[in-house]
Amino acid sequence: MQFHLNGFEPGDPDIADPVTRVHGGGARGPVPAEVDVLIVGCGPAGLNLAAQLSAFPDIKTCIVEQKPGPLLLGQADGIACRTMEMFNAYGFAERVLREACWINETTFWKPEEGRSESIIRSGRVQDVEDGLSEMPHVVLNQARVHDFFLDVMQRSAAKCEPYYARKLTALQVDRSAGIEDHAVTVTLEGCDAAHEGQVETVKARYVVGCDGGRSAVRKSIGRELRGDSANHAWGVMDVLAVTDFPDIRFKSLIQSARDGSLLVIPREGGYLVRLYVELAKLEIGERVASRNITLDALIAKAQRILKPYTLEVKEVPWWSVYEIGQRLCDKFDDVPEAEVETRLPRVFISGDACHTHSPKAGQGMNVSMQDTFNLGWKLAAVLRKRCTPRLLHSYSAERQAIAKELIDFDREWAALLASAAKGTEGFDPAKTQSYFVRSGRYTAGTATHYAPSIITGKAHHQHLASGFAIGTRFHSAPVIRLADAKPVHLGHVVKADGRWRVFIFAPAGQPEQASASVRALCDALAGDIDSPIRKYTPDDADIDAVIDVRAVFQQEHRSLAIETMPPLLVPAKGKYGLRDYEKIFCADPRGDIFAMRGIDRAAGCMVVVRPDQYVAHVLPLDSTAGLAAFFDRFMLSAR
Amino acid sequence: MQFHLNGFEPGDPDIADPVTRVHGGGARGPVPAEVDVLIVGCGPAGLNLAAQLSAFPDIKTCIVEQKPGPLLLGQADGIACRTMEMFNAYGFAERVLREACWINETTFWKPEEGRSESIIRSGRVQDVEDGLSEMPHVVLNQARVHDFFLDVMQRSAAKCEPYYARKLTALQVDRSAGIEDHAVTVTLEGCDAAHEGQVETVKARYVVGCDGGRSAVRKSIGRELRGDSANHAWGVMDVLAVTDFPDIRFKSLIQSARDGSLLVIPREGGYLVRLYVELAKLEIGERVASRNITLDALIAKAQRILKPYTLEVKEVPWWSVYEIGQRLCDKFDDVPEAEVETRLPRVFISGDACHTHSPKAGQGMNVSMQDTFNLGWKLAAVLRKRCTPRLLHSYSAERQAIAKELIDFDREWAALLASAAKGTEGFDPAKTQSYFVRSGRYTAGTATHYAPSIITGKAHHQHLASGFAIGTRFHSAPVIRLADAKPVHLGHVVKADGRWRVFIFAPAGQPEQASASVRALCDALAGDIDSPIRKYTPDDADIDAVIDVRAVFQQEHRSLAIETMPPLLVPAKGKYGLRDYEKIFCADPRGDIFAMRGIDRAAGCMVVVRPDQYVAHVLPLDSTAGLAAFFDRFMLSAR
Repeated sequence: MQFHLNGFEPGDPDIADPVTRVHGGGARGPVPAEVDVLIVGCGPAGLNLAAQLSAFPDIKTCIVEQKPGPLLLGQADGIACRTMEMFNAYGFAERVLREACWINETTFWKPEEGRSESIIRSGRVQDVEDGLSEMPHVVLNQARVHDFFLDVMQRSAAKCEPYYARKLTALQVDRSAGIEDHAVTVTLEGCDAAHEGQVETVKARYVVGCDGGRSAVRKSIGRELRGDSANHAWGVMDVLAVTDFPDIRFKSLIQSARDGSLLVIPREGGYLVRLYVELAKLEIGERVASRNITLDALIAKAQRILKPYTLEVKEVPWWSVYEIGQRLCDKFDDVPEAEVETRLPRVFISGDACHTHSPKAGQGMNVSMQDTFNLGWKLAAVLRKRCTPRLLHSYSAERQAIAKELIDFDREWAALLASAAKGTEGFDPAKTQSYFVRSGRYTAGTATHYAPSIITGKAHHQHLASGFAIGTRFHSAPVIRLADAKPVHLGHVVKADGRWRVFIFAPAGQPEQASASVRALCDALAGDIDSPIRKYTPDDADIDAVIDVRAVFQQEHRSLAIETMPPLLVPAKGKYGLRDYEKIFCADPRGDIFAMRGIDRAAGCMVVVRPDQYVAHVLPLDSTAGLAAFFDRFMLSAR
Repeated sequence: MQFHLNGFEPGDPDIADPVTRVHGGGARGPVPAEVDVLIVGCGPAGLNLAAQLSAFPDIKTCIVEQKPGPLLLGQADGIACRTMEMFNAYGFAERVLREACWINETTFWKPEEGRSESIIRSGRVQDVEDGLSEMPHVVLNQARVHDFFLDVMQRSAAKCEPYYARKLTALQVDRSAGIEDHAVTVTLEGCDAAHEGQVETVKARYVVGCDGGRSAVRKSIGRELRGDSANHAWGVMDVLAVTDFPDIRFKSLIQSARDGSLLVIPREGGYLVRLYVELAKLEIGERVASRNITLDALIAKAQRILKPYTLEVKEVPWWSVYEIGQRLCDKFDDVPEAEVETRLPRVFISGDACHTHSPKAGQGMNVSMQDTFNLGWKLAAVLRKRCTPRLLHSYSAERQAIAKELIDFDREWAALLASAAKGTEGFDPAKTQSYFVRSGRYTAGTATHYAPSIITGKAHHQHLASGFAIGTRFHSAPVIRLADAKPVHLGHVVKADGRWRVFIFAPAGQPEQASASVRALCDALAGDIDSPIRKYTPDDADIDAVIDVRAVFQQEHRSLAIETMPPLLVPAKGKYGLRDYEKIFCADPRGDIFAMRGIDRAAGCMVVVRPDQYVAHVLPLDSTAGLAAFFDRFMLSAR
């Protein structure tokens, strides 16, 4: 898609009318007095959480935002492969694929030898390694990501809409309250002309602070961002420009001899480009604001770095200057480490509220959204009485460790990018390129690895599926659906619906043998009184409502007969008892999932996948007891 | 996507609220008194035309429909590969791919030998041959196709919306009027409770009858549907059912020994299925209505055909009985054959208004939409003074020939399907399967081949690109975009925007030689005073506004430098003169377009593509004169 040719225009590029192409001004009327979850902040973390919770009409969610309306421009833009996989779970990956700018290759530029006032291309690499994800790395205005989540919320049964122009002024937790009580009291103050000074009080069972680096929720629970103070100043601008720099549509990392670094990020629509411009090393305690950097100075700096190429800036829809600092909270909820055994969390923080860093690795929006993708299903499971509230401790445990890795990575990456400022001796472009390539899996968001916990099994049987590492995201692979021969991606069955999945990988052998062994497992799961499916699925729910069992066979799909499959894999559902035909798959000969993911062909296995798409466990096919024991750790009986 | 589990629900399955998931009741207020184009009928043909014309805010389009609101269920459902390619030109192919049911394989069933009361699978074939199209064959409720077109119309700059509950009662053409006059006067009568008896008059420059088999527009221009009278009665029903028939999610053609044929069409959402049930051969002159066939009888017939399998029908959202007859108009506009040289058409008919046939080859909706995809750009080009009005004669010439082929095909296919009714001796399942496979390109919509005309060149240079047969649709292939290394489909640059495309396929050789030869052509196209681009592009328009030139090179994309490319291929556009970086492509080594489409590697060539995605001409690279002469046949100078 091409757009923004005659100037930047916010909103949906498919809609011509500027009034209807942007989202409306949010919910009207007062904020509800009592809710299950109050989300503070309409950034990517907050909206992702609201979108996730809006899938459950039985959960009362409210999201508030200090700004007077939806974001229209600026802010983050990088969308990692892993984030695209998550978008797919919400059903809007196709829209992003169509509208976003794809980052296919990254190029590296350095000062020309003997003519150090000029830059020259020093390298060029594929941006994402083959097979890392079925999704590309793309770039799209954060405002559009917000729009997609707002669409999910608006279209949901819960019909959730943000309350804009509300500022949090106080938050109190009643520690004597019971787990079912609305123990958190939040005070909001209207902050636009229409609501100036109006005070509203909301009682919530849980509050999640997605309110950015200056988070009021974080302060209210007495937590602090700690780490390096700012030391480097950078400028960022979205430009419509004419240039003869040949790589303007590639992600390009330019290190000049005298003027520091420039990062080129091509943007959606084919014309817009984002430029990150290194400005200066700050003195200790100095703030970038004190330097009064102007847009003209920013453009002039970019022009100097790009020499001998020209850059004629025609329009700057958004720009900003900021200092880099890597800072982190020690814990992401309101329970002190020492009290974890005795107290349950009521207040959480996520995204910039608990980790801040430089924007140039394109991680901020991605990690923030993964924070609340981790938290959302847990809150829903606890509120819906499917899981023990102790599950909520795992949010801080899992995500704080990930944020720590991010901070460490960003410190190293920012230092590398900034090293050019020290002069030509100070840096090595080959080193930057090689670090970039080595970090590819990390920046794609696929390196996240959760440690063993009540929801993440130990790797006793990891050898049965070496490519589905326990604790990492379920790495999708192509398969053929048995009932209609459709080529699909197995991972795409994992929707953001709060359900657990058990993928049964059938052992080799004649079709009858393979299905006999799968049948034994399925019959046990469907029939045994102590099977997790029987135990945790409410009587009035479909059999796959809590744990969704699917099977993958090694045979070519034409050699398997669906009529020989166990009923659990063609279950009767809904008010009519219609059969669900989308549970059984076969390996795709053009790319065999058993080979691609290191499945033990002789033994087969079970792979348990969390609602947020992470591998929770790998078990032998005959281990129904192991499966039951795993779910028993955190699930609550439906009876 | 899975939906309809607890009963059929019309509208967008992504929206939970039944009120907002369906389209609204159309435009309010009176129909405009004077328009450029009046479209009668909101079926697939009419809505496609309205969507196409709504891309041009300078054209005043009005579409009226007799029904009181948008279609919600029933009617056609087959979407051929070629139609998906067209949907892509409107920007909604991704939505259809996600929501529709994909037809991957087709199975064939016959009476079991020695147990002729039972059916048995006799064959199974891939539904679409590999490489025929980048798009699959899918099935989706016609109502949803309408919705997608309505979305395009609503989002367009023209903001076109249907006027429902309007019935055409009279149409008169003032044959003395000039070509710029509003020569057609149409009288409409309100036909719902709110508008009952209200009469409105519209004057239009052109009227298009997309008003179905009983077309009032067709009658008003004195044309008739001629051909076979109905002879076979069929029933059709959309069902939610429980069955042990194993191929219920495949397109399945079942020929029973004693009860005739059944066609199973799996439908979107994973549960819904359409069944076409053969009823009986009718007596001459007999109408199916006279037989008073009930839904129960239809279900009972389907159950008998499916034996030994069971079919328990739970809900029937839509059903109908109809007779098959193949009928056709001799001409699709208001100009008699003898007057083609002396008179210009003002009134057109399309879709069922000029060709009716059986629904079971899944062609009706597809051919009807291709009718108006052919007409839309022509009307727009004439109204915008880009092309001579004589161009409009080519609509009937091209589409009547296609409809004739459809009628012939359908007669043969319907006879084959019905032959089972004659008893076991009367048919041969192998013959049906083989005819199905041989007809694959036809039913996919890719066999359409327009004869030479003012807009379709002669095949003098066809050998330069044997895979882009002149007169057939431009068969897309994968390429790599030079400026950003994005893997894309070349055909997807052809949007429904009324523009012509010239694809330059560069000759082999060193990058400098290849680009030198392309440069010579581009410089001539951009610079020569008599080049078609100079001649036909208005002074205030972008250089690609009328003819969009793109180039494809044989070299690996990393070996070509964008800075060596001619300005026409990186043109300055819009108010800022921003560069368009999306005109240059390289062969994709994973699938080389030069090999796939038989391009002469040594010579290269130009492939001219019409706004409706058909190949208009193939010319040698040095034939700028040939290119100019081609466009001179039908284009009007912009000066």
